[in-house]
Amino acid sequence: MSVKDNHGYHMPPQEFRRHGYALIDWLADYALNVDQYPVLSQVKPGDVRATLPQSAPQIGESFEQVMADFERDILPGITHWQSPNFFAYFPANTSGPSILGELLSAGLGVQGMMWLTSHACTELESHVLDWVVDILGLPEKFKSSTDGGGVIQDSASSATLCALLAARERVTRFNAKEAGPNGRLVAYCTTETHSSLEKACIIAGIGLKNLRKITTGDDLAMDVSAFSSQIEQDKSDGLIPFFACATIGTTSTLAIDPVPEIASVCEQHRLWLHVDAAMAGTAAMCEEHRSLHRGVERADSYCFNPHKWMFTNFDCDCFFVADRQELINTLTVLPEYLRNPATDSGDVIDYRDWQIPLGRRFRALKLWFVIRHYGVEGLKHHIREHVALAARFVSWVNANDDFEIAASPRLNLVCFRHRSSEELNRKLLEALNKSGRLFLSHTTLDEKFCLRFCVGQTHTTEAHVAAAWRQIEGTANQLQSAS
Amino acid sequence: MSVKDNHGYHMPPQEFRRHGYALIDWLADYALNVDQYPVLSQVKPGDVRATLPQSAPQIGESFEQVMADFERDILPGITHWQSPNFFAYFPANTSGPSILGELLSAGLGVQGMMWLTSHACTELESHVLDWVVDILGLPEKFKSSTDGGGVIQDSASSATLCALLAARERVTRFNAKEAGPNGRLVAYCTTETHSSLEKACIIAGIGLKNLRKITTGDDLAMDVSAFSSQIEQDKSDGLIPFFACATIGTTSTLAIDPVPEIASVCEQHRLWLHVDAAMAGTAAMCEEHRSLHRGVERADSYCFNPHKWMFTNFDCDCFFVADRQELINTLTVLPEYLRNPATDSGDVIDYRDWQIPLGRRFRALKLWFVIRHYGVEGLKHHIREHVALAARFVSWVNANDDFEIAASPRLNLVCFRHRSSEELNRKLLEALNKSGRLFLSHTTLDEKFCLRFCVGQTHTTEAHVAAAWRQIEGTANQLQSAS
Repeated sequence: MSVKDNHGYHMPPQEFRRHGYALIDWLADYALNVDQYPVLSQVKPGDVRATLPQSAPQIGESFEQVMADFERDILPGITHWQSPNFFAYFPANTSGPSILGELLSAGLGVQGMMWLTSHACTELESHVLDWVVDILGLPEKFKSSTDGGGVIQDSASSATLCALLAARERVTRFNAKEAGPNGRLVAYCTTETHSSLEKACIIAGIGLKNLRKITTGDDLAMDVSAFSSQIEQDKSDGLIPFFACATIGTTSTLAIDPVPEIASVCEQHRLWLHVDAAMAGTAAMCEEHRSLHRGVERADSYCFNPHKWMFTNFDCDCFFVADRQELINTLTVLPEYLRNPATDSGDVIDYRDWQIPLGRRFRALKLWFVIRHYGVEGLKHHIREHVALAARFVSWVNANDDFEIAASPRLNLVCFRHRSSEELNRKLLEALNKSGRLFLSHTTLDEKFCLRFCVGQTHTTEAHVAAAWRQIEGTANQLQSAS
Repeated sequence: MSVKDNHGYHMPPQEFRRHGYALIDWLADYALNVDQYPVLSQVKPGDVRATLPQSAPQIGESFEQVMADFERDILPGITHWQSPNFFAYFPANTSGPSILGELLSAGLGVQGMMWLTSHACTELESHVLDWVVDILGLPEKFKSSTDGGGVIQDSASSATLCALLAARERVTRFNAKEAGPNGRLVAYCTTETHSSLEKACIIAGIGLKNLRKITTGDDLAMDVSAFSSQIEQDKSDGLIPFFACATIGTTSTLAIDPVPEIASVCEQHRLWLHVDAAMAGTAAMCEEHRSLHRGVERADSYCFNPHKWMFTNFDCDCFFVADRQELINTLTVLPEYLRNPATDSGDVIDYRDWQIPLGRRFRALKLWFVIRHYGVEGLKHHIREHVALAARFVSWVNANDDFEIAASPRLNLVCFRHRSSEELNRKLLEALNKSGRLFLSHTTLDEKFCLRFCVGQTHTTEAHVAAAWRQIEGTANQLQSAS
């Protein structure tokens, strides 16, 4: 129990050590045993809350008690994103070095809003993001030694919003910052673009009716001639096209928009081109996938998430811009209490002007830890392993006449379906997830319900993928014979 | 060195244990010795980067090597926000239980965007925020058992932006979501309001020219009759007043806007009232400061930051709304790949619709750990201690005729200045911060440069405050005799 001593009610250092060791042990064991838990939590709405006391404790409690309650009351309500049997959505994987980087960041408790408030927090971030430019084969113009630069955002949603805002300011010559957007600005994406762009258009006052979702071809990539025609149409209607988002690896199927062709249209009409490679970008570190980034050298901004497929725990999105001054001019507000000589000198980066919030954690530490622990070689090895496992899964689907591949498999994602009814596919997903033995998600392609199987969890091996496929086949057979 | 074994390049569990223990020890030692470091980093722009290799390592490196480089290259560039000699800005304090909560969150690696993606992540958050309503004496309407509810945001900046967006949608009857704001919406704050509201007005497309900074009285709180007159003026100009932000504890001086009177004006003209109590809100848990929250029961939304003064490491802002449906309707976008029966049932909270980004960490864990470790009693004890230390500092300033208090001291903040020249005050701040022995910041009051001394670091004791005051007196004397 927490008692007042010469530390007041704070946790004394020797207690922190003791509980810290115990928690490190718990997490090491968790990583080893996480495949024993139901992947998708099996509790019902309200079950977790029902275990918790109505009021906060007046008197402090022991850490052992809190951890015991965590294990008894909270853990059953956890969906285990770190299970090797997690194949849903896109992964949000992590790793030992990343967890330790996050721990160090929490312990230092640095608030890196400006260079002045922690020099190293800013400089390590700029530096590691320059490394990332080289690792992924991104253009030099995204390096901090040029007019551009990189910054860590919490998510691709926030990166996309920042890109949209900078584009809005560029086209209005910074009038939107003063007077708001004018209701005539039009943004472009495709029917497959991530929903975060819709959210960004709502937030930034562009409005959903000014977001054009361009149709896609059979490959689910943008139909560039439709894009070009739509711009002409909008211009002739007196509207102002200003922003386009191309996706390298869409959420549904990892479709890849034709960035070079989109860039040509953007250049012709002076649109800001943002490229969202949230999950797939990581793969470009492998030479055989480097072509994913074809055309990115012509983009105004780009983002990908190490917190998806690069062993760096959420949150860590790397966002790059070709002209950092456009972003800074958009988001800067400098009240007296934040003025300081370093900022006034212009010699330093103040990352508060590169993001939505003011404050920020020292997130570069975990990314630095991950890159140094694995080395580029180690990262590539595991990405290749995941891609190979997905290919093996494809071969198994193809070998079973009851199933079909629903979209060209790419990288680590397989969309597939049972050839029978829509209903069976829905029941199959529900039964698999209810089993707790694996977790898949779904999408709709050609108005058909499809299952998505994404291999990206840190500790997934062939055994997990094979077991998942056996479970899928077996459950489908059971459902079919029951129907 | 990282080698490929049966774990691939991943950190094997036994290594994670070993490095984890070592890092826990490092952090325990750091907390004990942090007062030995220069509070404000003494390195120059570029110094940290100059130590770092130009490229990422191809081959992984040992964790010991990374930590050694951290200590040699990164640590000198850290500004020690957790030093007991940190008196700048507002604090961003932390504590043992909070660090361990963040560690557990990183290790679980849960992505809590929806109830489905981790039931406990959502339910613990709703539950602990209901506790917070009781602890701080906030109105029942902010509890999740009513039409309202709470959510953890990364910062007060994001909370304010969400409030502004929900207000924008309410006044336009959700037309802004579709068509963008109409250029006639007007928001209100004061000349002392935090700059994040300006940033929010830029982002949300309201435009800075539609943000009215109402003048303040001698107490630096909003002049409510000026507020009321400005609304009348704007209405007669055909504009649409829609949002006001009142502050409980401004950044400069902890001035307190008269919330009840502001609420009356907002009710009369149907403005959304947001209350920002980012730092001061924590104090309301003490009965003698409960009146800080006078009038909050009439607000539409409210936020405060446990990551400032409640021993919970950044980021953790608690944001409450009286009508959660207004916020959800503003921010919801539901693509097929996120659809699920739980969401469709309406029985669960999907926090992705309460915030700017889609993804989210399990931040409720650290807040739960902190509240359970300290108990309400322990939290109150330390808040009272900080307030008492600030009062002692005031008494020392008052006892020295060379200095004067520059604004009514409130809670844990003291604004003061040397009675001599503007220049001496500027030089004093620079010399103190360069000494590395303490870190202060400044503000401008009545066009005079003033020093800000804020007591809120976890381990600050009377000895630290007394040493700081001796250093301030001594440095001022030296500067005066040198001039």
